Amino acid sequence: MERMERHRFETEPYYLPVGDEVAQFEAAYAARLPTMLKGPTGCGKTRFIEHMAWRLGRPLVTVACNEDMSAGDLVGRWLLDAGGTVWQDGPLTLAARTGAICYLDEIVEARQDTVVAIHPLTDARRMLPLEKRNEVLRAHEDFQLVISWNPGYQSLMKDLKTSTRQRFVAIDFHYPPPEREAEIVAHEGGVEAEVARRLVAVGAKSRNLKGHGLEEGASTRMLVYAASLIARGIPAHQACRMALVQPLTEDEAMAAALSDLVDTFFD
Amino acid sequence: MERMERHRFETEPYYLPVGDEVAQFEAAYAARLPTMLKGPTGCGKTRFIEHMAWRLGRPLVTVACNEDMSAGDLVGRWLLDAGGTVWQDGPLTLAARTGAICYLDEIVEARQDTVVAIHPLTDARRMLPLEKRNEVLRAHEDFQLVISWNPGYQSLMKDLKTSTRQRFVAIDFHYPPPEREAEIVAHEGGVEAEVARRLVAVGAKSRNLKGHGLEEGASTRMLVYAASLIARGIPAHQACRMALVQPLTEDEAMAAALSDLVDTFFD
Amino acid sequence: MERMERHRFETEPYYLPVGDEVAQFEAAYAARLPTMLKGPTGCGKTRFIEHMAWRLGRPLVTVACNEDMSAGDLVGRWLLDAGGTVWQDGPLTLAARTGAICYLDEIVEARQDTVVAIHPLTDARRMLPLEKRNEVLRAHEDFQLVISWNPGYQSLMKDLKTSTRQRFVAIDFHYPPPEREAEIVAHEGGVEAEVARRLVAVGAKSRNLKGHGLEEGASTRMLVYAASLIARGIPAHQACRMALVQPLTEDEAMAAALSDLVDTFFD
Amino acid sequence: MERMERHRFETEPYYLPVGDEVAQFEAAYAARLPTMLKGPTGCGKTRFIEHMAWRLGRPLVTVACNEDMSAGDLVGRWLLDAGGTVWQDGPLTLAARTGAICYLDEIVEARQDTVVAIHPLTDARRMLPLEKRNEVLRAHEDFQLVISWNPGYQSLMKDLKTSTRQRFVAIDFHYPPPEREAEIVAHEGGVEAEVARRLVAVGAKSRNLKGHGLEEGASTRMLVYAASLIARGIPAHQACRMALVQPLTEDEAMAAALSDLVDTFFD
Amino acid sequence: MERMERHRFETEPYYLPVGDEVAQFEAAYAARLPTMLKGPTGCGKTRFIEHMAWRLGRPLVTVACNEDMSAGDLVGRWLLDAGGTVWQDGPLTLAARTGAICYLDEIVEARQDTVVAIHPLTDARRMLPLEKRNEVLRAHEDFQLVISWNPGYQSLMKDLKTSTRQRFVAIDFHYPPPEREAEIVAHEGGVEAEVARRLVAVGAKSRNLKGHGLEEGASTRMLVYAASLIARGIPAHQACRMALVQPLTEDEAMAAALSDLVDTFFD
Amino acid sequence: MERMERHRFETEPYYLPVGDEVAQFEAAYAARLPTMLKGPTGCGKTRFIEHMAWRLGRPLVTVACNEDMSAGDLVGRWLLDAGGTVWQDGPLTLAARTGAICYLDEIVEARQDTVVAIHPLTDARRMLPLEKRNEVLRAHEDFQLVISWNPGYQSLMKDLKTSTRQRFVAIDFHYPPPEREAEIVAHEGGVEAEVARRLVAVGAKSRNLKGHGLEEGASTRMLVYAASLIARGIPAHQACRMALVQPLTEDEAMAAALSDLVDTFFD
Repeated sequence: MERMERHRFETEPYYLPVGDEVAQFEAAYAARLPTMLKGPTGCGKTRFIEHMAWRLGRPLVTVACNEDMSAGDLVGRWLLDAGGTVWQDGPLTLAARTGAICYLDEIVEARQDTVVAIHPLTDARRMLPLEKRNEVLRAHEDFQLVISWNPGYQSLMKDLKTSTRQRFVAIDFHYPPPEREAEIVAHEGGVEAEVARRLVAVGAKSRNLKGHGLEEGASTRMLVYAASLIARGIPAHQACRMALVQPLTEDEAMAAALSDLVDTFFD
Repeated sequence: MERMERHRFETEPYYLPVGDEVAQFEAAYAARLPTMLKGPTGCGKTRFIEHMAWRLGRPLVTVACNEDMSAGDLVGRWLLDAGGTVWQDGPLTLAARTGAICYLDEIVEARQDTVVAIHPLTDARRMLPLEKRNEVLRAHEDFQLVISWNPGYQSLMKDLKTSTRQRFVAIDFHYPPPEREAEIVAHEGGVEAEVARRLVAVGAKSRNLKGHGLEEGASTRMLVYAASLIARGIPAHQACRMALVQPLTEDEAMAAALSDLVDTFFD
Repeated sequence: MERMERHRFETEPYYLPVGDEVAQFEAAYAARLPTMLKGPTGCGKTRFIEHMAWRLGRPLVTVACNEDMSAGDLVGRWLLDAGGTVWQDGPLTLAARTGAICYLDEIVEARQDTVVAIHPLTDARRMLPLEKRNEVLRAHEDFQLVISWNPGYQSLMKDLKTSTRQRFVAIDFHYPPPEREAEIVAHEGGVEAEVARRLVAVGAKSRNLKGHGLEEGASTRMLVYAASLIARGIPAHQACRMALVQPLTEDEAMAAALSDLVDTFFD
Repeated sequence: MERMERHRFETEPYYLPVGDEVAQFEAAYAARLPTMLKGPTGCGKTRFIEHMAWRLGRPLVTVACNEDMSAGDLVGRWLLDAGGTVWQDGPLTLAARTGAICYLDEIVEARQDTVVAIHPLTDARRMLPLEKRNEVLRAHEDFQLVISWNPGYQSLMKDLKTSTRQRFVAIDFHYPPPEREAEIVAHEGGVEAEVARRLVAVGAKSRNLKGHGLEEGASTRMLVYAASLIARGIPAHQACRMALVQPLTEDEAMAAALSDLVDTFFD
Repeated sequence: MERMERHRFETEPYYLPVGDEVAQFEAAYAARLPTMLKGPTGCGKTRFIEHMAWRLGRPLVTVACNEDMSAGDLVGRWLLDAGGTVWQDGPLTLAARTGAICYLDEIVEARQDTVVAIHPLTDARRMLPLEKRNEVLRAHEDFQLVISWNPGYQSLMKDLKTSTRQRFVAIDFHYPPPEREAEIVAHEGGVEAEVARRLVAVGAKSRNLKGHGLEEGASTRMLVYAASLIARGIPAHQACRMALVQPLTEDEAMAAALSDLVDTFFD
Repeated sequence: MERMERHRFETEPYYLPVGDEVAQFEAAYAARLPTMLKGPTGCGKTRFIEHMAWRLGRPLVTVACNEDMSAGDLVGRWLLDAGGTVWQDGPLTLAARTGAICYLDEIVEARQDTVVAIHPLTDARRMLPLEKRNEVLRAHEDFQLVISWNPGYQSLMKDLKTSTRQRFVAIDFHYPPPEREAEIVAHEGGVEAEVARRLVAVGAKSRNLKGHGLEEGASTRMLVYAASLIARGIPAHQACRMALVQPLTEDEAMAAALSDLVDTFFD
């Protein structure tokens, strides 16, 4: 299917494995089990699924979930054309029909009813009822459904229902260990190893503050941002303030504490 | 009706009866009584109705209910075509018109007003008023309405109204007894009998924790997932963590307890 | 009007009068008074109005009310056709225009604003303003408006406004007395008189539990369901469990009590 | 304007004046002041405005307000036609353009924003901005805006804003004095004077119970309903139960008290 | 632009200045500053802006704000025409394009997001992004944005955001001093000076009751209404009851107090 | 791309740098990092991004965020044309496709789900999935995403999610130091240096009242407004009342205090 070519990766997306996640995913894909990637913001889940899609030679259809997304956005809809109405597959249907991996990013952002719409694809028969077409689509044998979930953001209103969670096997993600993370920061941010190591040390300290005044610590991505600014001539202190301190907190005392933390490593 | 062929089962869907449920359903179908399948997530209700549709030689129209589903989605709507508007039957109307079994899965997920729309089909005259067409459809003599309900998920907002429940006869479902469940896990997960027996033992223990920190125990489907991963080379501990522990809880103490439980059976 | 033929009854719908309700309705219809049928779920209100429509020789237009139903669904709307837009009467307008009885079933399920839309038809001039057409329809002289209401379901959010209730005369409905009810159960369920009498006795006991742990007792319809299952070979205990116990309660103690009650009559 | 003919009264609508309301309305109309008819349900406000429209020789456009009514429903909208879109005046615009009296019945039922849409017509310049047409309509010199309001139904959510009330002069309505009311009941219900007098006496007693267990007493309309049933052969007790007792209360004690009250007058 | 002619005033709208408001507005217009008219209901803000538009020779586009008004209603939308879709400017766009004064009346009634849509027109560059057209409209050099606000109606839900208020300069309005107000009442209500003086005295007393049982006192407009009724033969007491007492309060004690107040001046 | 020309600045927008913000932004743009401008209302964030777009020679697409803005408004939609439907890029897509800077002003006003729609553009691959087109747009290499945020307005309902904030580097904005601010006020308001200095002094004092009865102090823009009125002949006291006092507070005591403050500088 020509239209799927743009969903393929021509070059290998950069990903440094941390544990057994590659083998785990390969087994889950081999059994075509619906799979959930669990872990905090910015720890590399999106990069991982891109890497795996490339590795398995499958196209990847990514959907950023949000509350405004209806089941129709996922599944498809009728469009008005010159000669009447024509059906247009949504991204989920497209992936199921052509055998792509469909990645629903930040699934808890979607409305629960939209989430329920994916249940039939996780049943043994792997069907997707296109009710508006009176069609029952049986998923392509290469199709797999993957979702991401950050259990750190818990709220009364937005949680993954038990009846949904039970339909997926889960792979755990964490921030990479220091040496790996420094390697990533140096590679992606364009700084020397020593600068990367210091940034990673700042990041690790900030993660210890989670639950002690910070909602979340610095992600790997934020460390890469700081590195990118340093690589373009912004002094390290200022770069850390722009990329690490200000995005993490509005509390002045906490911001001062984080700035002091930065000073410890970049004097 | 040619378009109904895709709703028929060519081969027998695998189902191992647990009690008298097959005879009960056959009597309910013979009297064309609206029927409710009650029981927990993943215990085999969907597989059962597929099996019964095959057994009775009826097409099966399955609808996964959700809050976004309007009465119009169930009943049908006018579509704009080159020559004006054309009517398209919804899945409920299609089933009522052609004599299929219509299965509304997870009925409590639907809005109460959508649920009310099925009432006329449960009356003695078995009619479906298509108000937007000013048509009154009398259901085909082979039509039957079946719903599923998991009473374990009770909430203030979402419950089945008494005036709806009274319109259905109910068939109870539970997880299968251990030997049957092991047979299913071995058959569907592709593992040896001994591995299946141990997984079933883990599942039974987890179900005792329901209401003691777990919202729900491991379903038969989750045990099949764990078996599938083991069959593809993932060590049993890791497979159980991926398929049983992580999908059931975010609580670290409970996750540790469940992991210890797994150790008892896979040392 | 040809299109109304499908709203007529060719054969007499079976109905056993309980009191003066037939005479009361005939007087209300003679004066064309808006009429409300009050009573619990499944006691025969729908069957009664069908019977009366047949008796009075009027077509019957039935609308199952729900929250999703807009005033436009009742009154009518513009549809897009090949040659522009064409007006389509809704069921209320159709009934008012052609002189049918319009039966709004479960009126409290409708949104209050939709309920208000019927007020002009209950005024002395019996008009229906079709605002979207700039037409004022005067109702056909044979038209009558009938609603049903189950005051047992009371809630803060859904109640019939005083200004609406005052526009209707009311006819009370209750479950039929034992002998009549047994006659109905035997006739409709296909069982012998003795079995019907025992089922009716179970039903009467269950109604005494209303307000003592049960939201509602067994309706006549539920007794007919139990009879139908017995007539198709399901043992009486199991049939009562499927048709009476499980649809009435999720509480285990209450379910046990009801099962014991059944044992008293079917030993 | 031909299309307005259906909004004219050919014969005099029956109305018995109670006080100075006719002169008050004539002065308000002479000054074209926006006017509010205040009073309880069923006391004759709608009949009064019909009578006045006939008396003043103006067409009357009546709109039953409800929450679902948008400003577009009142003002007008674009419709899709064979040759593109055509504008269709809403009832308010139609009345303002052709010089009719526009009567917005039960104004508090409308959304506040819809209510605000009538403000420009109550300003000195009496304009109606048709924003969707970029037209500013100056009202016909014979146009008048009239609303009805029942201040007895007060709620936190639905009240007439001060900034709206200040734009209207008010005429008070009450139930008619006993002799007048009996005259109306006899005339409209078709019963003899003595029966009418007794019904009116029951009605007066019931109004004393307002605030003592009844939300509202019996309206003149309800007395006419009871008379109509008596005139068609229903015994007086039963007719009062159908038309007065049951529509007023669901409380058994209160219903018994009302029935006793009826007995006092119809023994 | 021909279509703007209907937005021009041919004759001078009657307005009696109270203070420096004319000079203040002229300076604000000269600098094209966004301007807010602040003051109670019915004190003459609308008349003032009509007068100023006439005085400055600018067309005036008035928009009565309401909750139902979307940004699209203000800015414009695509309409379906015979040959496809055509763009139609909304009133704000029309005013900005042609150099009119755009007056948003009762701005707090609009949804906050609609209010935000006017921000870019209050920036230094005075642009209006027409996102649905991908056009950026620079406002005509004669364009000015004016809003009205009655700070007396304060509620938690509806308040003008600080970030919006800061974008406007404000001109204060109050009811006119007694002699001026009497002059207006006599001129517009068609009564003699003495009657007007007494009505104004009643109005002034009623305004002292604001916050002591009345939400708002009688506005100048209400006094003009009372005068109009008196001029058409309604006795002064009755006219005051219709135009001043009843529109101001539903409380019986307060209504009696206001009636006594009227007696003091019209004995 | 011709259609982007209107998004380019022909002349340099006036901006006086306060600190290192120009260098910081240049580094962030060089690395194409998503960037957030943080600071209070009216301190010059919008002027800064216009200046930077001019300085970097990029077109600027500005979007004023609001609650009514759907993901479709940002991304694009299908329009009905004579020959069927045609796709129209939204402002975000337009910017990403043509290499403009896209500035989302007051991002917290947007719905969270709309905010989530920008996440894929902040990932390493800088893609924008156009789900309704089944297209995956890779952003032009010159594209940058910039948002503004005023953390001073904090509310429970509207806050920037951590998972969004972490995707941006931040540049802090404050009101300019007194000499710079006076220079701006004189330049933009058209008053002499001494008047500008006094206005700036009033502004500085008012900002000290923030949190002590004022939600926000006077912005630079408000000082420019006051200057503009003075330049057009309004006395300084009155101009300050119109431009500074009334827009800041409804509290009479606070308004008096602010007026006294003005007196201190303009006696």
